[in-house]
Amino acid sequence: MTESAPRLADLPGEARAALDAQTIELPSWAFGNSGTRFKVFGTPGTPRDPFEKIADAAQVHAHTGIAPRVSLHIPWDLVDDFDALAAHASEHGVRIGAINSNVFQDDDYRLGSLCNPSAGVRRKAIDHHLRCIEVMQRTGSRDLKIWLADGLNYPGQDDLRARQDRLAEGLAEIYAGLGAEQRLILEYKFFEPAFYATDIPDWGTSLLHCLALGERAKVVLDTGHHAPGTNIEFIVMQLVRAGRLGAFDFNSRFYADDDLMAGAADPFQLFRIMHEIVRVGALDPASGINFMLDECHNIEDKIPGQIRSVLNVQEATAKALLVDREALTKAQAAGDVLAANGVLMDAYNTDVRALLDEWRTDRGLPADPMRTFAESGYLARIAADRVGGTPAGWGA
Amino acid sequence: MTESAPRLADLPGEARAALDAQTIELPSWAFGNSGTRFKVFGTPGTPRDPFEKIADAAQVHAHTGIAPRVSLHIPWDLVDDFDALAAHASEHGVRIGAINSNVFQDDDYRLGSLCNPSAGVRRKAIDHHLRCIEVMQRTGSRDLKIWLADGLNYPGQDDLRARQDRLAEGLAEIYAGLGAEQRLILEYKFFEPAFYATDIPDWGTSLLHCLALGERAKVVLDTGHHAPGTNIEFIVMQLVRAGRLGAFDFNSRFYADDDLMAGAADPFQLFRIMHEIVRVGALDPASGINFMLDECHNIEDKIPGQIRSVLNVQEATAKALLVDREALTKAQAAGDVLAANGVLMDAYNTDVRALLDEWRTDRGLPADPMRTFAESGYLARIAADRVGGTPAGWGA
Amino acid sequence: MTESAPRLADLPGEARAALDAQTIELPSWAFGNSGTRFKVFGTPGTPRDPFEKIADAAQVHAHTGIAPRVSLHIPWDLVDDFDALAAHASEHGVRIGAINSNVFQDDDYRLGSLCNPSAGVRRKAIDHHLRCIEVMQRTGSRDLKIWLADGLNYPGQDDLRARQDRLAEGLAEIYAGLGAEQRLILEYKFFEPAFYATDIPDWGTSLLHCLALGERAKVVLDTGHHAPGTNIEFIVMQLVRAGRLGAFDFNSRFYADDDLMAGAADPFQLFRIMHEIVRVGALDPASGINFMLDECHNIEDKIPGQIRSVLNVQEATAKALLVDREALTKAQAAGDVLAANGVLMDAYNTDVRALLDEWRTDRGLPADPMRTFAESGYLARIAADRVGGTPAGWGA
Amino acid sequence: MTESAPRLADLPGEARAALDAQTIELPSWAFGNSGTRFKVFGTPGTPRDPFEKIADAAQVHAHTGIAPRVSLHIPWDLVDDFDALAAHASEHGVRIGAINSNVFQDDDYRLGSLCNPSAGVRRKAIDHHLRCIEVMQRTGSRDLKIWLADGLNYPGQDDLRARQDRLAEGLAEIYAGLGAEQRLILEYKFFEPAFYATDIPDWGTSLLHCLALGERAKVVLDTGHHAPGTNIEFIVMQLVRAGRLGAFDFNSRFYADDDLMAGAADPFQLFRIMHEIVRVGALDPASGINFMLDECHNIEDKIPGQIRSVLNVQEATAKALLVDREALTKAQAAGDVLAANGVLMDAYNTDVRALLDEWRTDRGLPADPMRTFAESGYLARIAADRVGGTPAGWGA
Repeated sequence: MTESAPRLADLPGEARAALDAQTIELPSWAFGNSGTRFKVFGTPGTPRDPFEKIADAAQVHAHTGIAPRVSLHIPWDLVDDFDALAAHASEHGVRIGAINSNVFQDDDYRLGSLCNPSAGVRRKAIDHHLRCIEVMQRTGSRDLKIWLADGLNYPGQDDLRARQDRLAEGLAEIYAGLGAEQRLILEYKFFEPAFYATDIPDWGTSLLHCLALGERAKVVLDTGHHAPGTNIEFIVMQLVRAGRLGAFDFNSRFYADDDLMAGAADPFQLFRIMHEIVRVGALDPASGINFMLDECHNIEDKIPGQIRSVLNVQEATAKALLVDREALTKAQAAGDVLAANGVLMDAYNTDVRALLDEWRTDRGLPADPMRTFAESGYLARIAADRVGGTPAGWGA
Repeated sequence: MTESAPRLADLPGEARAALDAQTIELPSWAFGNSGTRFKVFGTPGTPRDPFEKIADAAQVHAHTGIAPRVSLHIPWDLVDDFDALAAHASEHGVRIGAINSNVFQDDDYRLGSLCNPSAGVRRKAIDHHLRCIEVMQRTGSRDLKIWLADGLNYPGQDDLRARQDRLAEGLAEIYAGLGAEQRLILEYKFFEPAFYATDIPDWGTSLLHCLALGERAKVVLDTGHHAPGTNIEFIVMQLVRAGRLGAFDFNSRFYADDDLMAGAADPFQLFRIMHEIVRVGALDPASGINFMLDECHNIEDKIPGQIRSVLNVQEATAKALLVDREALTKAQAAGDVLAANGVLMDAYNTDVRALLDEWRTDRGLPADPMRTFAESGYLARIAADRVGGTPAGWGA
Repeated sequence: MTESAPRLADLPGEARAALDAQTIELPSWAFGNSGTRFKVFGTPGTPRDPFEKIADAAQVHAHTGIAPRVSLHIPWDLVDDFDALAAHASEHGVRIGAINSNVFQDDDYRLGSLCNPSAGVRRKAIDHHLRCIEVMQRTGSRDLKIWLADGLNYPGQDDLRARQDRLAEGLAEIYAGLGAEQRLILEYKFFEPAFYATDIPDWGTSLLHCLALGERAKVVLDTGHHAPGTNIEFIVMQLVRAGRLGAFDFNSRFYADDDLMAGAADPFQLFRIMHEIVRVGALDPASGINFMLDECHNIEDKIPGQIRSVLNVQEATAKALLVDREALTKAQAAGDVLAANGVLMDAYNTDVRALLDEWRTDRGLPADPMRTFAESGYLARIAADRVGGTPAGWGA
Repeated sequence: MTESAPRLADLPGEARAALDAQTIELPSWAFGNSGTRFKVFGTPGTPRDPFEKIADAAQVHAHTGIAPRVSLHIPWDLVDDFDALAAHASEHGVRIGAINSNVFQDDDYRLGSLCNPSAGVRRKAIDHHLRCIEVMQRTGSRDLKIWLADGLNYPGQDDLRARQDRLAEGLAEIYAGLGAEQRLILEYKFFEPAFYATDIPDWGTSLLHCLALGERAKVVLDTGHHAPGTNIEFIVMQLVRAGRLGAFDFNSRFYADDDLMAGAADPFQLFRIMHEIVRVGALDPASGINFMLDECHNIEDKIPGQIRSVLNVQEATAKALLVDREALTKAQAAGDVLAANGVLMDAYNTDVRALLDEWRTDRGLPADPMRTFAESGYLARIAADRVGGTPAGWGA
């Protein structure tokens, strides 16, 4: 039992190095408005374009020090001059990360994109991905992230098998378009917006397609995209074991794909996930795993919502780094169920917040990012400055 | 085992009377556009106002003969002259049914309506309900149907208990505003749009509020508003036993509140629900149960989507009426599990479509409503006629 | 943000009083063998009779200081001389708590007990409860705890409604048999061992029966007896509000009724539950809520499994007592979602273990109960002593 | 719309051939007693040994004509002389099918079998499988069916990744022991008896191991082994597409692994599954898919429970064979959601019972197997004959 809160110096050097290596990529769309089918509530100061989104994202990095990249969503974040956008990011201390393709908002995509029964619509969806790859060339992005809304609402609506075959064909053409250093990362989702069958509903399906495509195709695990009760850390372990975990979309959920702040719904689960990550050293960028947020701030302020999420992931990571691996392995080998569980829980039950305050202070970052941001007046400033124009949202 | 498809004459008189007594109320909003948070796909010919919605709903009644009422949603269906709307309905062979209050789309309602921590917002929400009661006076509606989007996304966001107290207070004021023949029917929902806690999440909560309000407060059971695995027919039975089942919202779901066509996802469940209804004679209007649809036709045509749903409910009802009640009771009393289950399954496995074709033909209705409607050219006509204006949707 | 682990003195006096008032009742059956339908694994030293179970339970109290009562299960814990059993308990520093009736293990109960279609079986089940009340007289127990395995495996197997009526009748007779100071506490369960319908599947059903019975009928909430995703703290709040929360069965689960150690699967949920308890002062015995464990230690040692569970509940309680109620209320009233959630999380993220070590030390209890028990040699002693006889399990 | 129940002659020749080709393998253990952790209810006449189980299974085949094989469970069905058992089966008109290994009932397996942290226990588990292969040589079985109860109850209890590595190693040795015509078929299960993590929890994990093993390793899909809401027909399609669907375990469930009779809980789902099977011609034995039942008859009679299940699968198959494939494909290609769904539902809504009565009559089988069996007096006969001895159950 830990008698008091640990300090940074209590961490082994390797653990400190892991903390230092950790980065979390932010989604540009988290800074725009989002909501449910019932209502999208707006906030004053919501960005009107990708430049403003990046400025907001940079606030998160400025306060936490571990969020140096921003993912873009195409076409939501299309700009005429991506060089200017990249320069803008750089000026704000961040850079552009993964490119997310969006093939679910044109009327043509009512019955799917890459899986659509119409060859013309499939062609259009493939072409959109090829254009995304062009954007990647200009932004220096490594990852083309694909999440498809494809699926069926009614049994019989389309042929489940034929759709897989179309999907494989489309993905193959897209994969062939990638540069040698680029990757295709393929997300799966249990359901929504399709309500009977989703064309990539589980990690098994995503993995099968990745295996068919080649080494640079990897699986994206979104923590909110599973059936109730699914053991997510098991999937993390399995994909790492298969060498195919390409990225995380962190968020949290009580019910479906709620897209709440990471760690908000089940902080113990987030800890268990990070435990599987740190135990194989996968925080190291060499692991090729891109740790990203993918969340909606429907009712809370967006920038502090992202800060809170980043901190939650970092706290879970610090706890995972505190696990006494030697004691754990010993108890596991002895088949001592309570002792082994106890070692894990000791780390989880430890309060790591002071340790991380110290980590930030050492780097010239605010000890308390939430308070410092709140006191910075940034939200009031953007609310005053960003008058007119259309707030960004999922439609733009 | 039934050797051939039964005919109408094979039904006992009481069962035929029950079929004749059955009506299903249609939701005006099912004829407008709907979708998910990702996209709302439109259809040509979508109604632009409540008059056009009612005209479309009337098509469903014209083809099925059992859908004579249309629920309105306020403010979506606000008109200047409700007398004119009622007359319009009457001309089209239908009438106005329940009034649904909508207190989830103003910005004020971001943190709830009747449960909102702000007294001012609660006042506004109560006032909206009182205005809905005024609409009821003008439309002759019996039922004020309340579904609240109130809830929390994050633990601690608000006080669960205080919200119940506010809710009770607001409902009491609304209930007091009802006319002597009017009812307040209160819906519950497991989750969405709130993702941590919903203020009326289950039938127990709805019932407790109804018991506190008085005899004319009843529970609305929406078949899509339950946790995975919930036995819905049990709840139907329990609410009927308590004398508090006020209405159904029929739809179907595989995952969450998918709002698919009734009977599309689990026709056997729909049959079991109707079995609990017919066994206590609750199809009789005297039961006070309002059978309604509440669905979204996100990707399919709306009018035939409603026709298909109405037919599915009717088919499930006919099967339930075919249950050999005497044989069932005997097998149950004997504790003969397989025989009792077999009696129920015999009815479910029977094909009742010819019987219902006959039922319709006898009434001068089309034997095959889906085909007759498709061949009527109505969809092409409204697509051609309804040019300009804003298609109705959940926002209007 | 808490900079270091709080000490006992950091707690307000009221919170310290609440900690002091807290007691947790242990289930005698947790000390016997249990398992799944696939296998019951035994442990050396498993008690052979209620006397040995109580001796083991007393170890939990001796090490934690907050587990002074033991629930009995009848007939598993039937003895000829209950006075001797009570005296034995007293000698070991504990006393007998609630009496649990067991009407699911005779062959007669294949199709149910109080809901059985056979009047003879119902009579037998009622009579068993009356005998449990006799046991209560002899043991001075206040609570007759009823959990029924009644339900159906197949649709149609029996009449859902008739079973409710039989249930109401049986409960009424049992309730009438209670002494003036005794209570009937009625448990609900989502499913298992019945796989289609359970006769008391949810809190609403249990509450309806309690309301019909009278003031001394209360609901038992077993934390493992809900559908996936159910918000349990909401139900706690609602039952407290209705004045009908009679008792808890603590345990934890990832899937179904897993009966794992309390707090093991979702410690944040346990904290949220305890937050609803402490916010209304319901730890006070005057609240009439009996806090009990109901768990299975299928693969881990039983006594330390119970100690770990008791400590987990106490830690969650201490965290709930640390919530800055004033700050929380203020943030809630202001509609500041992130701040309000932050206040709650601050308490949850605090490490309370040193504080509780201190609490124990102050009372002459071991600072680290798990270690002290492990080092006590008790398990080795009972393994050596309890040779021969039949280890207790769910069958005895 | 089908105006009357179809006759056998209404089926195309290909569909009739598919019906004729269909066989369903029965589990020997379905004829023994089973139950839940709460109680195992027995029935008079329960078999006491594998010979009697096979005699009972043969009754199912005698009445249905499509259940010619019986799976064995080792060690439950160990006999000294497997030649005698095979001859006994042959005399009764059936033969021995798959061999199921059981490595979950020795005390050694408390922490797992092939995944156990102890090398000694893993060795024992591997050896048991090698002995099962010896049994296969003697019985002429093609399939070694492996379902493991391995998993964890508590986070940290063991190393998730190390367990996968041990599993892979153990499976490799077992696979190497197979004869050239033999297969290893590997089952997955969402949860139970492990309640935190299961070592083969999903089809993806099973498939990964099969891919590593070789061509003769295939996945077993048990319809009850999935998370709530999982689209099972999608997995069927995906495994067929990957060439790795080795076998089905049919049963049905409302909640967890309820092991109810196939088709009892969701007959529409069973139909959708069979639709995916017949659309690729996989009823043909050449597909290598072994269609098996795996069920528990906890409260109903076992032999008629199996007959009912076999008939339910056959009825779902006949409906799937009635799907108008041409119309379906046309509607799907046209993107006509309602029409495509309608084609599928037309087949599902058709009553195929008379058609299958005819199919049986043509083969000299009873038109109504349930009634004929009930009237045969077989149950009374075995109840009278099988006196003394220990009824078979999951322990023996």
